[in-house]
Amino acid sequence: MPNHCLEPNQNEDLASERRLCPFNTLEMTARIYGGENFVKSRQKIQKYVQSVPELRECSSDFSFLSRLETLERTARNAVVLMKHAPKICDPNEPFEFEYLRKQICGDDGYPYGLHNSMVVPMLKVNCSEEQMNLWLPKALNGEFIGTYAQTEMAHGTNLKKLETTATYDPETKEFVMNSPTISSAKWIPGNLGKSSNFILVMAQLWTQGKCYGPHAFMVQIRDPVTHMPMPGVEVGDIGPKIGINSNDNGYLRLHNIRIPRLNMLMGNSQVTPEGKFIPPAHAKLAYTSMMFVRSVMIHLMGQGLGAAACIATRYACVRRQGEVLEGQGEVKILDYQTHQYRILPQISRAYAFIFAGHYSKDLYFRVMEDVKRKDTSLMADLHALNSGLKSVVSWQASQGVEQCRLGCGGHGYTCASALPQIYGLVVGGCTYEGENLVMLLQLARYLMKLAPQIVAGRPNGKISEIAQYLFEKKPTKSRLQKNQSREAQWEAIQEGFEHVARRLTLEAYQRLSDLKKNGVPHEVAWTKVGLDLSRASKAHTRTFLTRIFINSVKNEKTWSLKEVLSDVLHLYLHYELQDCRADVLEDGYLSNQQAEISREELAKALEAVRKNAVNLVDAFDFQDRELNSQLGRKDGNVYENLWKWAQNSEVNKYQVLPFHHETTGKIMKDAQRQHSKL
Amino acid sequence: MPNHCLEPNQNEDLASERRLCPFNTLEMTARIYGGENFVKSRQKIQKYVQSVPELRECSSDFSFLSRLETLERTARNAVVLMKHAPKICDPNEPFEFEYLRKQICGDDGYPYGLHNSMVVPMLKVNCSEEQMNLWLPKALNGEFIGTYAQTEMAHGTNLKKLETTATYDPETKEFVMNSPTISSAKWIPGNLGKSSNFILVMAQLWTQGKCYGPHAFMVQIRDPVTHMPMPGVEVGDIGPKIGINSNDNGYLRLHNIRIPRLNMLMGNSQVTPEGKFIPPAHAKLAYTSMMFVRSVMIHLMGQGLGAAACIATRYACVRRQGEVLEGQGEVKILDYQTHQYRILPQISRAYAFIFAGHYSKDLYFRVMEDVKRKDTSLMADLHALNSGLKSVVSWQASQGVEQCRLGCGGHGYTCASALPQIYGLVVGGCTYEGENLVMLLQLARYLMKLAPQIVAGRPNGKISEIAQYLFEKKPTKSRLQKNQSREAQWEAIQEGFEHVARRLTLEAYQRLSDLKKNGVPHEVAWTKVGLDLSRASKAHTRTFLTRIFINSVKNEKTWSLKEVLSDVLHLYLHYELQDCRADVLEDGYLSNQQAEISREELAKALEAVRKNAVNLVDAFDFQDRELNSQLGRKDGNVYENLWKWAQNSEVNKYQVLPFHHETTGKIMKDAQRQHSKL
Repeated sequence: MPNHCLEPNQNEDLASERRLCPFNTLEMTARIYGGENFVKSRQKIQKYVQSVPELRECSSDFSFLSRLETLERTARNAVVLMKHAPKICDPNEPFEFEYLRKQICGDDGYPYGLHNSMVVPMLKVNCSEEQMNLWLPKALNGEFIGTYAQTEMAHGTNLKKLETTATYDPETKEFVMNSPTISSAKWIPGNLGKSSNFILVMAQLWTQGKCYGPHAFMVQIRDPVTHMPMPGVEVGDIGPKIGINSNDNGYLRLHNIRIPRLNMLMGNSQVTPEGKFIPPAHAKLAYTSMMFVRSVMIHLMGQGLGAAACIATRYACVRRQGEVLEGQGEVKILDYQTHQYRILPQISRAYAFIFAGHYSKDLYFRVMEDVKRKDTSLMADLHALNSGLKSVVSWQASQGVEQCRLGCGGHGYTCASALPQIYGLVVGGCTYEGENLVMLLQLARYLMKLAPQIVAGRPNGKISEIAQYLFEKKPTKSRLQKNQSREAQWEAIQEGFEHVARRLTLEAYQRLSDLKKNGVPHEVAWTKVGLDLSRASKAHTRTFLTRIFINSVKNEKTWSLKEVLSDVLHLYLHYELQDCRADVLEDGYLSNQQAEISREELAKALEAVRKNAVNLVDAFDFQDRELNSQLGRKDGNVYENLWKWAQNSEVNKYQVLPFHHETTGKIMKDAQRQHSKL
Repeated sequence: MPNHCLEPNQNEDLASERRLCPFNTLEMTARIYGGENFVKSRQKIQKYVQSVPELRECSSDFSFLSRLETLERTARNAVVLMKHAPKICDPNEPFEFEYLRKQICGDDGYPYGLHNSMVVPMLKVNCSEEQMNLWLPKALNGEFIGTYAQTEMAHGTNLKKLETTATYDPETKEFVMNSPTISSAKWIPGNLGKSSNFILVMAQLWTQGKCYGPHAFMVQIRDPVTHMPMPGVEVGDIGPKIGINSNDNGYLRLHNIRIPRLNMLMGNSQVTPEGKFIPPAHAKLAYTSMMFVRSVMIHLMGQGLGAAACIATRYACVRRQGEVLEGQGEVKILDYQTHQYRILPQISRAYAFIFAGHYSKDLYFRVMEDVKRKDTSLMADLHALNSGLKSVVSWQASQGVEQCRLGCGGHGYTCASALPQIYGLVVGGCTYEGENLVMLLQLARYLMKLAPQIVAGRPNGKISEIAQYLFEKKPTKSRLQKNQSREAQWEAIQEGFEHVARRLTLEAYQRLSDLKKNGVPHEVAWTKVGLDLSRASKAHTRTFLTRIFINSVKNEKTWSLKEVLSDVLHLYLHYELQDCRADVLEDGYLSNQQAEISREELAKALEAVRKNAVNLVDAFDFQDRELNSQLGRKDGNVYENLWKWAQNSEVNKYQVLPFHHETTGKIMKDAQRQHSKL
């Protein structure tokens, strides 16, 4: 079967891994990106990029640039992107623009990042019709660049305490926007620092002497001609970060900025010309754009981990180290069990996240369809699911990227591998769009609402398929056996994960109830069982990730894909079982013998996945221009390209650094002179 | 009792944590750094730095500099350092120089880093007397800058396969040095790129047609006057990295470079003028400098984790988020159990690593004393201990730094927190001086040598105190109980850790033996049980870390320190027990009830350590100039300083970026023009 990455002039150590590929890698690519259409779109855009010199020459390797140069490079790349996107991208397939954007601007931010991912969706959901007609075409058209400014320097999670104010003045029919303190400065929003000129600001709405909580306001912060900050606006970049450095995350203070009444987004809440506040019909609708971002994140995190696994896997077949049998030459480092254990589970997790991402996005669209019919019954489920997934997936993905990076040794430490940059990007997902611990506790609120119903033995009303298992009665001992079929093992393991989630949910609920019975107020009790709650949330999320992966493999129709995915799933499940070994051991659910069976299965699964490791990461279909990694090159010609790459460093423009003779050179000469005097 | 960080004009949220400090923080500082003398040295140097403007003004915050500017800043800082060091640092107390260096040049590398840590020690151990007299004074005097070039682009761990050659030419009495391939290029050595001019190169020694393996050679790579690379030398910087970016880690290729015979370090092996190879009397001696670096690393990793914990703990008392009881205001985030669980165990691990570091350094000096008396019996123990410690401590420290960083939310993501930089520095420890997995397997070789002796019930000869427990018979059920004294709990937990290490060692040995009995060659079998071996090594290392910490607390004479350290130790032990819960549960050593006891003790320990968290991190006595963190400032005035810091960004020199009107500005104007035409 063909591996589409097998080409002439490759490093033989990679080619040999690809030659016997037992499945069609591009067919797998279709599974990863959600269908054959996506593969066609990708290939169309790849060809186009290769054929147009000014696109082909855009580079998103910023390793040797200062931050200012990085922002310039990205802005220039963005110009080329915006010029060509209409020529090649189908406007009805937003995926195509995003894919072209990735090829040209990379993943670490570009001027339109937040404009496209937050501003446009928010306008669509939160505007009155009048506002929509006024702003949406301009936004889509690129007449302004916007961002969404919510987080403040001293206020993140707790929106209620945002300090920025928008006070309605009925005399002039304007809102007066203010950042009363340093701690109220907007801080961190992407593209806020230098790129954006009209932005959505979350501020406490004050009218008729009363505060109605945070609402979104459209505020002009820069002059449309000069791009200078408007009077009363302090705005700038917050400085370098662990990643995402081609994004000008910014700060903002507003001092008595007056905006027209109609610059408050009035699709939900409203303020009348007289200053009367009219509450929204459906409060939850305002949050749907955030839900969408979280749905998309799951897939992005899976891709980030996939990229890291791709780099580390290819390199681990090129790198040889240690002679196991004397005279037989050094072996590929991927042939060591310890190295397999480091890298291969990351491949399996990347696949698991990708499948979960598809589910989560589909569910989002299902829920949005419901919402159009005024049915919001599944919104809580979607929110709970995404909270858990966002937290678990971003954490495991970033941990996995780091394992891949460490697995590349010293080369993983340098930006030539691209792994530091990927880590910076992926680990950001633990913090943005809701800090992970907070997200777990949000899911826990959902679980704690279900808990009394579980105790009672039946749900109050409709329960989503995701939570169904919590109400099922299952054996209290694991059914894992040595000579079971794989499918039977998978079911036994899944049952075990569900057992753990059910148990931890009920235990957390019990502890919470006990505290409350002893007179501890609910919210205080909640902080005292935070650890139990987050354990339950993680366990619940695991049941979902594994269930989706199992179903995906079971439903796979192409035999050759099904077979290799079975290996990956088998590894995944036993790896996860090892990961929560203590949880299944502590109540005697799993026996020591069963733990031993799982240990052996894991070792076998590592060997099985090892065989197709390169083919599995090739199926992600990453272009070299996306990865920007000398270690992860498709052709495996690592060492000569590492050498070439380093030559491009600004530091290497000078054989002798310009300041040498004034600094350490002088110290050496002075010391020599003194010595010769002695 | 005084907390020496309590000063006027502090953020009250920090001051209130300090005011009731139940111990003398500087007395704790003495425990952390190894005695009161160290505290005095630190204070002397702190005062000196504050009193000399050119020292005080040196900054090691490189956040806003390009890499070239960073190297320049560090070189200029180094000049100031070298000028003042002789005036204030006692040359007999190398610690004083290192402390001043840290204040002035920071921790991310400076031109003399490898010169001082590797070249000088190697010269001391590996030179003949003649060579010592020739080179050592010059090295100490700063007449050249050197580094140690061992690692090659395609060869790290497996020294035997280094490709660089040094071929003896008896006609000219010279060695001819060559890098025959790209993959043989020296790659990564610190300070190699631009700073160093005379360096120690590891190369395969060839003489009389035979290869005698890697040896060290002194090679001049740059002209002492012009500093230009010598003919036949290709040398440069390998580019930016995830951390340590003020170090010019470099690459090097040598093409037919001829060096005098006496440039081979001849303290151990020798080559006679005729070309005869004379092997060393004690082969192991050549490795002592590497052992020293690993000993020192433990303390450094502990300090790195301490710095991160200091930043995150202080910030977690300044940051308030979420109202637990309505109307009572937002609470300090350190008051949430989930946040405590994130940060406080890192404080306890930092203390544990520091105590282990003292032990490891003392052991190193004890072993060196033995070596002087030709007794090398403890060298294997030292090597095994340091291999395990280096691996476990660097990994747990970097994981801990990352928890601290994530615990600071969005602010932890930016370089203003300094946590990205600290992470880059600490996680480097997982890779340099022996990759962590390899290190664990080296310790495993030691354990596998002991295993048959454990089975036989008695050691072959003298066994160091570190491995004694492996030969002890102990109960097969944990003695942990609810109403025990703390000391009894500690002993019970320690016994449990020893039980696990003994069991995992014997299980790995059993698996290895079984494979070999079935005809699998030893080295192949070894790769197949890699996971079991590394588990055993980690478990063994844990017994050591916990034992040292327990002994340190037991031996503490000052009651007020002993009390707070007991809280820290209690947290540490239960945290570690949770960490290896599966290992103690799976053979029924710990019961479910006992696991529950530990869970409750952990929750209580978190509350106990919470009370003194700020005082415990203050005891590390970090200066603001060392931390370079706006979040971790001693005075807690976080927000105003975050604001000030960002103003300094090169990007914020421009209200409108110079390329704006050519790039995104143009896109906006074009779109507006087109729109107005419609």
